[in-house]
Amino acid sequence: MAVGYSGLPELLPVAGIRLATAAAGIRYTGRDDLALIELAPGSTCAAVFTRNAFCAAPVQVAREHLGRAAPRYLLVNSGNANAGTGVRGLQDARRCCELLAAQAGCGPQAVLPFSTGVIGEHLPVERFQAAIPGLHAALDTDAWAAAARAIMTTDTVAKGVSRTLELDSGTVTVTGIAKGAGMIRPDMATMLAFVATDAALDQPVLSDCLARAVEGSFNRITVDGDTSTNDACVLAASGASGITPTGADADRFTALVGDLCRELAQLIVRDAEGATRFVTVDVAGGRDAQECLQVAYTVAHSPLVKTALFAGDPNWGRILAAVGRAGLEGLDVERVVIRLGDVCIVRDGGVAPDYREADGRRVMAGDEITIGIELGRGRAHERVWTCDLSHDYVTINAEYRT
Amino acid sequence: MAVGYSGLPELLPVAGIRLATAAAGIRYTGRDDLALIELAPGSTCAAVFTRNAFCAAPVQVAREHLGRAAPRYLLVNSGNANAGTGVRGLQDARRCCELLAAQAGCGPQAVLPFSTGVIGEHLPVERFQAAIPGLHAALDTDAWAAAARAIMTTDTVAKGVSRTLELDSGTVTVTGIAKGAGMIRPDMATMLAFVATDAALDQPVLSDCLARAVEGSFNRITVDGDTSTNDACVLAASGASGITPTGADADRFTALVGDLCRELAQLIVRDAEGATRFVTVDVAGGRDAQECLQVAYTVAHSPLVKTALFAGDPNWGRILAAVGRAGLEGLDVERVVIRLGDVCIVRDGGVAPDYREADGRRVMAGDEITIGIELGRGRAHERVWTCDLSHDYVTINAEYRT
Repeated sequence: MAVGYSGLPELLPVAGIRLATAAAGIRYTGRDDLALIELAPGSTCAAVFTRNAFCAAPVQVAREHLGRAAPRYLLVNSGNANAGTGVRGLQDARRCCELLAAQAGCGPQAVLPFSTGVIGEHLPVERFQAAIPGLHAALDTDAWAAAARAIMTTDTVAKGVSRTLELDSGTVTVTGIAKGAGMIRPDMATMLAFVATDAALDQPVLSDCLARAVEGSFNRITVDGDTSTNDACVLAASGASGITPTGADADRFTALVGDLCRELAQLIVRDAEGATRFVTVDVAGGRDAQECLQVAYTVAHSPLVKTALFAGDPNWGRILAAVGRAGLEGLDVERVVIRLGDVCIVRDGGVAPDYREADGRRVMAGDEITIGIELGRGRAHERVWTCDLSHDYVTINAEYRT
Repeated sequence: MAVGYSGLPELLPVAGIRLATAAAGIRYTGRDDLALIELAPGSTCAAVFTRNAFCAAPVQVAREHLGRAAPRYLLVNSGNANAGTGVRGLQDARRCCELLAAQAGCGPQAVLPFSTGVIGEHLPVERFQAAIPGLHAALDTDAWAAAARAIMTTDTVAKGVSRTLELDSGTVTVTGIAKGAGMIRPDMATMLAFVATDAALDQPVLSDCLARAVEGSFNRITVDGDTSTNDACVLAASGASGITPTGADADRFTALVGDLCRELAQLIVRDAEGATRFVTVDVAGGRDAQECLQVAYTVAHSPLVKTALFAGDPNWGRILAAVGRAGLEGLDVERVVIRLGDVCIVRDGGVAPDYREADGRRVMAGDEITIGIELGRGRAHERVWTCDLSHDYVTINAEYRT
């Protein structure tokens, strides 16, 4: 069970957005594995994709379609990533878009395809073909929870968040769902997130809003640094509320989308493969954001820090060694302060004189832990979320295909 | 047992170099944990140290002494890293040098201290004091194997290599020992290597020889990227053979030291924590060495690749995804070729059409595996050695202190 997960909350319908799911039998049996999200005409849509050079066929097709038409449909399958599938993979992704477009009466470029699952197997296009009529007929505003479940692969829990925001001009709703159990997914190509609102936003405003939200959420989590071939995050605005946030309201709206994305991103870490602890790495006092992140990710990726977290062992020497190898030019170790929760473990170039092992153990006994690092050379501040490295991680990833 | 380890070979004495070991009770009982290496007067000595900003007290003192006097003694303890120990750690390291210098009748700056073991505990200087007279009295040319054992921490096997080289002017000998079970060591601060020869080399020549050797050996291995606070590698030349390699002989000598260091470095990977497979990541066709190494280390550090190696699973999608996220600007995935041993698994942007899973499984069934990557954009070529990520790795690192 995911760390600190208390169940899928009520996911509020978003006016102008309809969803449907189907059991297409792409890989799984007895569960939905295909989801369709419909955006009302006039919706705007922004998306960010994986930077992996070996990006999957659907990522390539979705990028291409986004540049040519306003998206009306997001077609998402789990169980097969359609990655590493060469030219045929591209043809298959395009064919799925055409099938849906024919059913819906729109152009194929108004359809964005998303796939998550095993790498290197061809999509069973005929199963898409069989499922699409029923899928399209089932579109409904109240199917967010079903969609959250349909896009799961090895996720142990469905992930979704809803918020409403009272603006001067009325109330807008934002609902989002995500899948992924880390930045990584063995054969199961990773993270997808779909967020929609009934607010009305121009495309450039929406793109900016998504870029900020992703920067502070999905771009701040790591399980083990293995960025997948299929990562994608989409933000759609139907405009059905008739409300366009402006001035201070625009800032509040952007902040809300940021909060919601951060919560979704944290849900992915909470459900990370084998995770038993949810860990915040908080780095302050850097010269700029980049060096704070460099230290935060070095600590968050360190197998030694991660196994100590798994063991609940306040092994501060490993954190100190990770900070020391993060590659910061001219780091003055005398000025570095490291804390586990509220306990100061390192200062003045070594273990804090008043540090007691019992205090460190008390912090490490929790399942939500903050590692605080103060670099003492500037005013930048960044935060990254990660998890521990457990036996179950090795088991899940060593035994998944075998 | 280390992968492909066939026992400690005969370690040849090196004229002008004497060694001794003692059971000082620093942390272990019933085994030697202190080693002394004496360099004959007139020897030259070169050393490289960890780049970790939190470097240990003995590293700081050894660097300082090296700049001020010709080294006569290397004093090495296992069981305690004297790292993260602040000002008192520096005082302790200096005091150990003074104790040995008083016994040996040299200046304290002619002594270089090295420590490996638990981080954050103070050195028991009184145990050094008690052991040093007997240690100094026991110096002998034929104690390389004993020294290789005395510097072990959680190493499961002693590591040493000897070579002789016939030059026009006579025969020179090079013998080296190392400890470490990866770049990483939990509390046990990592890798140490001591190599000595009876050839006569000026200090600048020796430094250059060491720099080249380390670049192609200890700087090309990784278990999990966690560079320690105590890493050090020393090359000493006693000159006792009276032979100074020149011209082509100098190149042959440099190559020999490089080979010997590579073998020692590979022994560290073979004995890495929990390792069940010895893995070569061979990257060719890069624009420069740096980008080849970037790809090689991304693959070598990928927990997904490492767990697949543990499982013996030819999960090429994970290797492809790691290459794709290595951050190479403008990488043309159509030109990338990936091989497992002699089997081509990826080309033309996806799985090779003629790839059969059975062929991949055959390669992965071995305990020595080469992952070959051709980037198709230049002539640079680099090689890195690593191991898999097993349950034992998690067990060793989660349970070491608890």
